[in-house]
Amino acid sequence: MSEKIYQGNIITSKSFDELEIIEDGYVCVRDGIITDVSKEWKKEYRDHEYIDHRGHLILPAFSDLHMHAPQYPQRGIGMDCLLFDWLNDYTFPQEANFKDETYAKTVYAKLIRDFIAQGSFHLVLYTTIHMNACNILADMLKEAGLYAYTGLTNMDRNSPDYYVDTTEESLRKTEEFILRNMGHDRVRPILTPRFAPTCTKELMEGLGGFAKKYDLGVQTHLVESKAEAAWAKELYPEFASDGEIYEKCGLLQGSGPKIFAHVIFPTEVEERILKEYDGISVHCPDSTSNITAGIMPAMKMSRKGLKIALGSDVGGAHFLAIYRTIARAVQISKMKEFYEGDERVKLANAFYMATVNGGSIFDRVGKIEKGYRFNALVVEDMLDEKLPHFLIGCIGKVLLHR
Amino acid sequence: MSEKIYQGNIITSKSFDELEIIEDGYVCVRDGIITDVSKEWKKEYRDHEYIDHRGHLILPAFSDLHMHAPQYPQRGIGMDCLLFDWLNDYTFPQEANFKDETYAKTVYAKLIRDFIAQGSFHLVLYTTIHMNACNILADMLKEAGLYAYTGLTNMDRNSPDYYVDTTEESLRKTEEFILRNMGHDRVRPILTPRFAPTCTKELMEGLGGFAKKYDLGVQTHLVESKAEAAWAKELYPEFASDGEIYEKCGLLQGSGPKIFAHVIFPTEVEERILKEYDGISVHCPDSTSNITAGIMPAMKMSRKGLKIALGSDVGGAHFLAIYRTIARAVQISKMKEFYEGDERVKLANAFYMATVNGGSIFDRVGKIEKGYRFNALVVEDMLDEKLPHFLIGCIGKVLLHR
Repeated sequence: MSEKIYQGNIITSKSFDELEIIEDGYVCVRDGIITDVSKEWKKEYRDHEYIDHRGHLILPAFSDLHMHAPQYPQRGIGMDCLLFDWLNDYTFPQEANFKDETYAKTVYAKLIRDFIAQGSFHLVLYTTIHMNACNILADMLKEAGLYAYTGLTNMDRNSPDYYVDTTEESLRKTEEFILRNMGHDRVRPILTPRFAPTCTKELMEGLGGFAKKYDLGVQTHLVESKAEAAWAKELYPEFASDGEIYEKCGLLQGSGPKIFAHVIFPTEVEERILKEYDGISVHCPDSTSNITAGIMPAMKMSRKGLKIALGSDVGGAHFLAIYRTIARAVQISKMKEFYEGDERVKLANAFYMATVNGGSIFDRVGKIEKGYRFNALVVEDMLDEKLPHFLIGCIGKVLLHR
Repeated sequence: MSEKIYQGNIITSKSFDELEIIEDGYVCVRDGIITDVSKEWKKEYRDHEYIDHRGHLILPAFSDLHMHAPQYPQRGIGMDCLLFDWLNDYTFPQEANFKDETYAKTVYAKLIRDFIAQGSFHLVLYTTIHMNACNILADMLKEAGLYAYTGLTNMDRNSPDYYVDTTEESLRKTEEFILRNMGHDRVRPILTPRFAPTCTKELMEGLGGFAKKYDLGVQTHLVESKAEAAWAKELYPEFASDGEIYEKCGLLQGSGPKIFAHVIFPTEVEERILKEYDGISVHCPDSTSNITAGIMPAMKMSRKGLKIALGSDVGGAHFLAIYRTIARAVQISKMKEFYEGDERVKLANAFYMATVNGGSIFDRVGKIEKGYRFNALVVEDMLDEKLPHFLIGCIGKVLLHR
């Protein structure tokens, strides 16, 4: 029996502004690909293997497009700080621990277990400057069957003595990581400059060379706070804005995804770049709250046709679960509405960001729809009496298909 | 052996602005009361029963001073609404289910299990208008050994036909609930007018009579949003402000605690009343985010000597855990700092609100300190390598002492 049919309450996006909810619907799957979605039973289903998830939710798995894997043990720590103190007092010392491979293995094993348990199957991950730890993470992701872009993190200035590379080391290690990890169907390398202030122009241009040579995408932090944007501008006075650094140094030349975390204060330059290079801006509402940076204009950007996805941004944030990030995206937008009158993010919008937009950089994931992969979650409804089915924010036990 | 000694990493408040952290400290307990807390081992400890929690945290249990028990199944639902639509479309229909005792038993059993699992042992709870369900909840709280104030909820106008009492019914049921549940050492009745707009003046004055006759406290919602405050003012034009309704109708005459949820826009009248009657304002940062009401000036009020505690405010909020509410109080205050320049809530402040201030209405709870009850949590550190101990926001398994 090669085709399977799953019955349950299907939730997927109809559009950016509307959810599609099919109660007691059917999903047919062959070789991991959805071949049919239907509200009604069809005669040809009778030969399929039937799997009963009635009373449970069937959702597309979530995509987490900005997360720092080595900071997983650190979430919730250093809340009283703002960005730079938090980096220097907590984050850099924490990341430096990953020169120890045993530590890396222990933390990354827990992280991957928790990604799976919480339904985030498609990831874009920051790491550290340590080659062995980066390879350990890549191997574990492959082993777990997750979809991911990850790279060796580049830092060659404005970093502590105990946690920094020379420009040459950073480039050499990056190329070695790329060559070792290219060609896998699910886990792929991506350029990972930490952010403009910790990377010299020479390093950036070297990474630009790899973008072209290996046809790679890039992930970075962009206009994360006014202080960060001002510092980047000071270090790169020849460029008009934070975003132009990446463009002019050649990091946007490859065909891989361009992932920009935060984008709280996009200028016209950033907006142009995001459009021109089909960039994705990653909204991380929990960490944004923690660093007092202001709030991404997520709806204004969306209405202009810019693509917004969601990121947990652990450890700046407290939790890994993207279903909680969805709720936080709605909540934080209400603050922006209260103070600035912006359009509020509705649940359907945030769900679309977390599934369709986030999934768009991977291969056919993010919807329960014909032709998409059945990378899906089956969520048990925790509360069983007289209740609506859609309980985002307090999702139950996650059963898995990936 | 009548005295026990617990060893672990003790966390308690030194003051509103400072935590006391004793690594590998000792807590001695006799008959549920703390008799000594020490950093050093003392000779007289040798006869005590020793309990080893080294590597774990020992914290005072949390107090949740504003929570709607019947809304527990509803958390996370109706996020796209503001307050009044949320009440009419989701909340009132949900609460109306509690005329069914079997449903009440099922939901309240889960709720109490989760309060315990998440370390909230001291509670102030809203209910519904249903006598039997209210008594079921009170009995379950007693049985579980939790500390609580709860009352039958009063609504005699501006409520749906299927979920409202007459003034006379509401008063009769309230008195019956009081008489049945008075005199217990842990679970006590409290007056529970839903909020001014759903209560006539006649009902309020009747409740005022009970405050005096039975020496009771009161819980209510106060200046929760500009819309709510304006509506209350329209319905009670003879009073200067929302708070004065409760004062002038006599609800503050008893010696029980006066618990005011939200208090987002306190006027001078509210500030006077809070001081004069030793009222507690309950900050509910998660639900406040959800209803786009604005943000309580928690630090300004604290610096004026007003007492602020924390509430989960489920189902307006998404989660029950007060340790998460602590993190949310810090986060939301950073938004207020960003937009209004207010002093930010630090972790020590929010912890104090959740333990010392919240605990102050119960009997000697909220600190790990000589003379206090050992209502405490032992929290396993989830992450075991090279990590700081204090992981608020991602607390581990909760072991219990109560």
